[in-house]
Amino acid sequence: MGNVIVAQSGGPTVAINASLAGVIEGALRSNYDKIYGSINGILGIKDDNIIDLSEIANSDSTFLQKLKTTPAMYLGSCRFKLPSADSGDPVYNTLFQQFSKYNIDAFFYIGGNDSMDTVDKLSAYAKSIDSHIRFIGIPKTIDNDLCITDHTPGFGSAAKYIATTTMEVIYDALIYNSPSVTIIEVMGRDAGWLTAATSLARNEYCCGPDLIYLPETPFNTELFIADLSRLLKEKTNIVVAVSEGIRDAAGKYISASTGTLDNFGHAQLSGAGKTLEYLVKDRLGVKVRSIEVNVLQRAAAHCASLTDQNESVEQGRHGVAFAEQGVTGAMVILKRTSNAPYTVEYSYAHIHDIANEAKEVPQNWINESHNWITQEMLDYLQPLVLGEPDLTYKNGLPVYVRR
Amino acid sequence: MGNVIVAQSGGPTVAINASLAGVIEGALRSNYDKIYGSINGILGIKDDNIIDLSEIANSDSTFLQKLKTTPAMYLGSCRFKLPSADSGDPVYNTLFQQFSKYNIDAFFYIGGNDSMDTVDKLSAYAKSIDSHIRFIGIPKTIDNDLCITDHTPGFGSAAKYIATTTMEVIYDALIYNSPSVTIIEVMGRDAGWLTAATSLARNEYCCGPDLIYLPETPFNTELFIADLSRLLKEKTNIVVAVSEGIRDAAGKYISASTGTLDNFGHAQLSGAGKTLEYLVKDRLGVKVRSIEVNVLQRAAAHCASLTDQNESVEQGRHGVAFAEQGVTGAMVILKRTSNAPYTVEYSYAHIHDIANEAKEVPQNWINESHNWITQEMLDYLQPLVLGEPDLTYKNGLPVYVRR
Repeated sequence: MGNVIVAQSGGPTVAINASLAGVIEGALRSNYDKIYGSINGILGIKDDNIIDLSEIANSDSTFLQKLKTTPAMYLGSCRFKLPSADSGDPVYNTLFQQFSKYNIDAFFYIGGNDSMDTVDKLSAYAKSIDSHIRFIGIPKTIDNDLCITDHTPGFGSAAKYIATTTMEVIYDALIYNSPSVTIIEVMGRDAGWLTAATSLARNEYCCGPDLIYLPETPFNTELFIADLSRLLKEKTNIVVAVSEGIRDAAGKYISASTGTLDNFGHAQLSGAGKTLEYLVKDRLGVKVRSIEVNVLQRAAAHCASLTDQNESVEQGRHGVAFAEQGVTGAMVILKRTSNAPYTVEYSYAHIHDIANEAKEVPQNWINESHNWITQEMLDYLQPLVLGEPDLTYKNGLPVYVRR
Repeated sequence: MGNVIVAQSGGPTVAINASLAGVIEGALRSNYDKIYGSINGILGIKDDNIIDLSEIANSDSTFLQKLKTTPAMYLGSCRFKLPSADSGDPVYNTLFQQFSKYNIDAFFYIGGNDSMDTVDKLSAYAKSIDSHIRFIGIPKTIDNDLCITDHTPGFGSAAKYIATTTMEVIYDALIYNSPSVTIIEVMGRDAGWLTAATSLARNEYCCGPDLIYLPETPFNTELFIADLSRLLKEKTNIVVAVSEGIRDAAGKYISASTGTLDNFGHAQLSGAGKTLEYLVKDRLGVKVRSIEVNVLQRAAAHCASLTDQNESVEQGRHGVAFAEQGVTGAMVILKRTSNAPYTVEYSYAHIHDIANEAKEVPQNWINESHNWITQEMLDYLQPLVLGEPDLTYKNGLPVYVRR
């Protein structure tokens, strides 16, 4: 058999290198020959920026274990959208000449929606020219918004970090005996999965968060203030989780521009958290603080979920196995077969049914008041954050691997 | 012998409960009888909000271990400044009546500068009325700005979290092959110790941060832009760490108000990071992002330093031992006796020499260009972040303990 090539694309997660390690492990055990890595996504193939991953993996016995726990993308990323497969664009010719040059039998693309779109187009083009090359997508996104698969690699680790951080922020918020509101802004422009994961912080030794607002339901500032006013009569310190993508009934982001200019003449953009902070200060007059967790939630490999890491590796391995079986134009998916005990099966789905579609939190997983989630959603989330990877530390910091 | 009472005050750290555990362990092994805890700092004594910690520790064998790894304050905090000891203020009479009521022989206050001021005043008042009660301060602050002691409990853990997070942010920033600037804003209004700890992220598998700016030297925006312009010619992705407290030569905070109003009519306050983000966008036109690490850096117990935790416990234990020896009006201090191997000794210093003084980063630990630190400072920082506490996890989250 020929060689395989793998690339990574889109925004970082903590588990995208675990999937890369899975592809390498799977290919090392397969009948495929060499394993190439394309630098900066599909651009590396186009621009001939390609490395030999078999060589790296074979020359350092600790490489794959370190890779599994390293955040972001070992191979780098890109944001490059292919033109449609029937566009006649010369980029397809360039890419397939490169595949020939490197004797590629299978291409694995680890990424989110846009990367699945690339896999979709490449497999469509391959079909149109009767190419034998297999194109497999391996999902990743902290947003958990890919269709058909039960959940996406990277989400469980981000959820674990968000839940842990929420719990720690709550401990931080509870120390004073004077009323306060703390607003945690979580990533997720259109899908509230990660914001919903703050709910996991509520347990027998942590009381919150008190309120959770997702982008899947319209955000009403008056109801928000009413929720807070009611709660402030019952307890002293309130902690709220909001998605960065919350919108009002007209679809306007709560994080809209304030229309004012800063010292340098730029329009100031306030995030949802900061905007609500000003609102609460104005309307309720209590001490209020907003926290934007920012990129930490997609990069905090020191707080990864072992379940997520293992599943990410497995999805990489299964991608290789499916390609060997002749599958193409497909994305590896997870099917949850049981919640308690938590079990999953690995399968694949036609990529065309996944690319460019987004999966929102179901309305019936959000409570009637639109300020908390249902037990069904908690049951869905809970298994995904279980387990802690065995990190190696050096000089007090986790050991990661870079190219 | 009589009883002891312990309280916590000021802002949270990850190690302040480890010191509380140390006080409890020390007192359990001492000749003291009961161990009381005052809720919300000194206010609990004033308002008779006091719990029996001996009972709690004796009834749950896992309590002290869980307490050592729990962030923030188990006993709650306060921000209450005592009037001067010779003011004749009735609060002193109230407090000392309470000490009598509970048959207190020693009072331990775990806190920062303000708490040491309280210990100073209480011991001065005790001396003025010939009271036998001993008053001992046990330090804590992520800012590391207490005098005389080598470093403060809580700082090592915050430094470990900041260094780990900086490394992960750098991995996140490096994935794209297009120029970018990432600005990490770190806590520390007047002292740059914690910002300097981002330097620990530079190692054989992490290239940054590229620039570090502390509040101890004037911040010059033109030199900052020049630093960035120069670096952007050498590398693609620049990561900068700035203290929230950086000021210009006139002493004006870079985080000054923009003088504009938001939707609700409030003046917008931009932090140093956000302000520099707008500046870089304006002047260099590259992709730029700022990250405010916020309260996570003082609350992230899931990423604590074992060295910090052990030293915090020891400082609690030694506080009890010093009180037994008759010491009063003192703060427990750490003396570094060697850097390699790292060794410390526990001692105490007169509290009056510590309270209300702040320790800045020495000028000769900052490089000539004022954009990085010296090897001497790296050697000082390195041992403080070593080791990882053995955390217990339940349902995927660390197990903490609350009152």
